[in-house]
Amino acid sequence: MSSLPTCIFCKIIKGEIPCFKLFETDTVLAYLDIQPLSKGHALIIPKYHGARLHNIPDEYLSDVLPITKKIAKAVGVDNDDPEGKGIGYNFLQNNGRIAHQEVDHVHFHVIPKRVQTEGLGVGWPAETTDFDKLKKLHEELLKAIGN
Amino acid sequence: MSSLPTCIFCKIIKGEIPCFKLFETDTVLAYLDIQPLSKGHALIIPKYHGARLHNIPDEYLSDVLPITKKIAKAVGVDNDDPEGKGIGYNFLQNNGRIAHQEVDHVHFHVIPKRVQTEGLGVGWPAETTDFDKLKKLHEELLKAIGN
Ligand SMILES: [Zn+2]
Ligand SMILES: [Zn+2]
Repeated sequence: MSSLPTCIFCKIIKGEIPCFKLFETDTVLAYLDIQPLSKGHALIIPKYHGARLHNIPDEYLSDVLPITKKIAKAVGVDNDDPEGKGIGYNFLQNNGRIAHQEVDHVHFHVIPKRVQTEGLGVGWPAETTDFDKLKKLHEELLKAIGN
Repeated sequence: MSSLPTCIFCKIIKGEIPCFKLFETDTVLAYLDIQPLSKGHALIIPKYHGARLHNIPDEYLSDVLPITKKIAKAVGVDNDDPEGKGIGYNFLQNNGRIAHQEVDHVHFHVIPKRVQTEGLGVGWPAETTDFDKLKKLHEELLKAIGN
């Protein structure tokens, strides 16, 4: 694995700093956030030092979503009802200071939400639909992708 | 795949509703959100109808993070600088009404952020660290996990 001696999350992976571990696989470690947004707020980190998601090799990401499901179930989100009320949760990963990333080792948040006053605050400044703009952007992105 | 005739995202997967497609694999479809929070806001959906992340079989999730990386690169996030300034992005998946989920077919958002006024608004009501509370919760969760 890639590791950075000064990185706090690399130190947690190496066991140099303790954590409230929930799951560990060959490629990821999951533990409780010690400054939680709600009860059960957990972090999943790849055992590979990289600042942003696009810096992490795919093979270090394959356990992230299966482990997220396990954490959600342990926290009790199965009590969610079909209308989507009950215990909710947000799954979030931030990249860059402007996007609210503070530690530059990729980390995925699993954040339960039982009441509006806890958990992730979500602001949603949606633009109105502009098909001409979307069509132009779509063409640009397909070029960037190489299609 | 599991599919629901009345679900708008299942209809997009089946091609009954058009989309600005970016990527498609055997298990996921990625396309532009038509009510974007910022330029390049994209959705990745598993080709399996399930309301919450923990309802989706792992095999329908394995392409989600690799495709997220590809979308981020196409949008130009490689221009991010080492200090985390420049183009950021949030990767988000919401579960339940209380957690801001509106369509009950699991969808992952890739949301670029170039300036504070666009993209995801992040509210972070962190609790102060309480090791006693964390230790108790940790024991509860390990029991729920079956360790
Ligand atoms: Zn690190
Ligand atoms: Zn569906």
